Amino acid sequence: MSEAIFPILMSGGGGSRLWPLSRGEAPKQLLRLVGEGTLLQQTALRALDTSLFEPLTVIAGEKQREPLVKQLAEIGAGEATIVLEPMARNTAAAAAVAALLVQAQSPDGLLLLMPADHLIADAEAFRRTVRAAAKTARDGYLTLFGIKPDSPATGYGYIRGGARLRPDAPARAVAAFVEKPDRETAVAYMESGEYLWNSGIFLLPAAAFLAELKAFEPDLLSAAAEALQRATRDRGALRLDPEAFARCRSVAIDYAVMERTEKAAVIPADFSWTDVGSWSALWSIAERDEAENATVGDVLTWATRSSYVRSDGPLVATLGVEDLVVVATKDAVLVARKDHDQDVRKIVDFLHESQAQAKKDRDTVA
Amino acid sequence: MSEAIFPILMSGGGGSRLWPLSRGEAPKQLLRLVGEGTLLQQTALRALDTSLFEPLTVIAGEKQREPLVKQLAEIGAGEATIVLEPMARNTAAAAAVAALLVQAQSPDGLLLLMPADHLIADAEAFRRTVRAAAKTARDGYLTLFGIKPDSPATGYGYIRGGARLRPDAPARAVAAFVEKPDRETAVAYMESGEYLWNSGIFLLPAAAFLAELKAFEPDLLSAAAEALQRATRDRGALRLDPEAFARCRSVAIDYAVMERTEKAAVIPADFSWTDVGSWSALWSIAERDEAENATVGDVLTWATRSSYVRSDGPLVATLGVEDLVVVATKDAVLVARKDHDQDVRKIVDFLHESQAQAKKDRDTVA
Repeated sequence: MSEAIFPILMSGGGGSRLWPLSRGEAPKQLLRLVGEGTLLQQTALRALDTSLFEPLTVIAGEKQREPLVKQLAEIGAGEATIVLEPMARNTAAAAAVAALLVQAQSPDGLLLLMPADHLIADAEAFRRTVRAAAKTARDGYLTLFGIKPDSPATGYGYIRGGARLRPDAPARAVAAFVEKPDRETAVAYMESGEYLWNSGIFLLPAAAFLAELKAFEPDLLSAAAEALQRATRDRGALRLDPEAFARCRSVAIDYAVMERTEKAAVIPADFSWTDVGSWSALWSIAERDEAENATVGDVLTWATRSSYVRSDGPLVATLGVEDLVVVATKDAVLVARKDHDQDVRKIVDFLHESQAQAKKDRDTVA
Repeated sequence: MSEAIFPILMSGGGGSRLWPLSRGEAPKQLLRLVGEGTLLQQTALRALDTSLFEPLTVIAGEKQREPLVKQLAEIGAGEATIVLEPMARNTAAAAAVAALLVQAQSPDGLLLLMPADHLIADAEAFRRTVRAAAKTARDGYLTLFGIKPDSPATGYGYIRGGARLRPDAPARAVAAFVEKPDRETAVAYMESGEYLWNSGIFLLPAAAFLAELKAFEPDLLSAAAEALQRATRDRGALRLDPEAFARCRSVAIDYAVMERTEKAAVIPADFSWTDVGSWSALWSIAERDEAENATVGDVLTWATRSSYVRSDGPLVATLGVEDLVVVATKDAVLVARKDHDQDVRKIVDFLHESQAQAKKDRDTVA
């Protein structure tokens, strides 16, 4: 079992930029947004190949449990291990718990960390990249999947690739992590050919990752270990101890480990990828009519161009508009200019603050 | 009683350009859109002054009966005569019925025809204009209320004023009726000072109007007379005979009589007026915030300018948009560019056609 790959599905995110469809109890990974099934189901299906993968583990928020169990059963992944987070603590804590679980089963095991809300159309290409990354991970590298940019995106972090680590594998050392760039910088990155998008997908040797965590985030690691030790079984799921888990620093794996370790590697991914991070991202990958509109549900577009118009409830009619995102549910409607839709999060934050202040029972809306 | 003025409220319109709020069973005159009460209530209140007016008569579609009775009672106009049209037949037929009713009570009576969906803020100024118009109407003129344009509107018909009819009254002969102009023509009309908007409000001597109808539309008049003769009393309302009323040509009073008679006069009105014909018209008269947005209901505007955003149901959030109309009800949402909102009617027509074709029971939506 020295080469065992344990797929870990991270389903902790809220996806607030896809409000009003994506909500606390129905975050975007649990929604049918594009293609067959939900994003979570599509992600799980990519990692069900038993010739390559150990059984699936899903780390998710408490609130998601019911739909999660249902959706896993629908695709024949009902045997997946479910780890419930009593509160959101970002990706470093989830990765720590996962690494501890993997190490307990297989000291030399690798964990494949996959956010549950990414869209990757070509599952076979994804698995080819996993196989290639495994060679690098087995050498002890914390291996990140880098995506070749097909546009100068400003919504992703970038990685500059360094020297090849072995002549027989495509992985490279990480020369630099760079934050989301402005448009001009993104164009330069893309033209240079030296940069890849940081996908947030990782293949990590459990032992090496835990060693780095111990060096950089010892408190986080010990709190995560305690949360796991004191975890309770609940109808087949593992519920992390709330008190201990709450003590984990809420930090992304990138900041906690990847940007600090000497052992970071990046493998160029052989597939097209999007994090479905916004309605405009969804528009860009959706099927569109001759006026460049993507429509879903009971929608009527009139003199409308280049817009994403979706209804999960009322009839929506648009007239004489362009470059808009219009999303309607039974209790909320978003109308945003497509190039402003990263700010949807601000609306959600504002609603949460208003709710907190008013102490009103409006949790269903935001 | 030779000077009796009978106010006639015409509530037959559907107001489809205010979809999705205005529907078959809730046309715009029955909605609270601006100011206190509904447009119908505001119109009725202008004509309840017993020192000037005889009791009110309301001509309305069968479907509107229940809300109409309720709304009239709310403002103390429960004694109004209600005439129910079994089907829509435009304004000439309604005016014919009204003139016959007035003549039966007062052979020299004047009828004041008022569409129920116009907004006139200054009721006292309105009554001043009625008094001034009465002098002209008593001379036998079919007197139309003309509004001094305060913008080069392209959504209204215009009237060119001719010679003064009497030295002691402001009314003029009508030199010409002109159709809705294009922008350039409207600017020229406005600058010339010779043109007035055709408000659709008329003060007519019953006898003279019926004589002209007999000359120009004898079939319409005899069908209207028959519809009234065979009308039935129904819980205090007068229901016109469906078979006879159906035979009335569906034509506006303007085309049927006003543009053909030698007895047309126009009185410059002394009040500001709008027909609330579109959402953008409503925006222009609404109170607006510092970003020029008018909002109604559960609405959140963010980086939004010069827009009308209204909800009668769901939470509506706008982000990074301008010059939009966004109107949401519990089952339908409109998103239109403000300068396209005259075309809302096309959406409603399309929905009606789709419904007719599909023979589906979706009448509640359009």
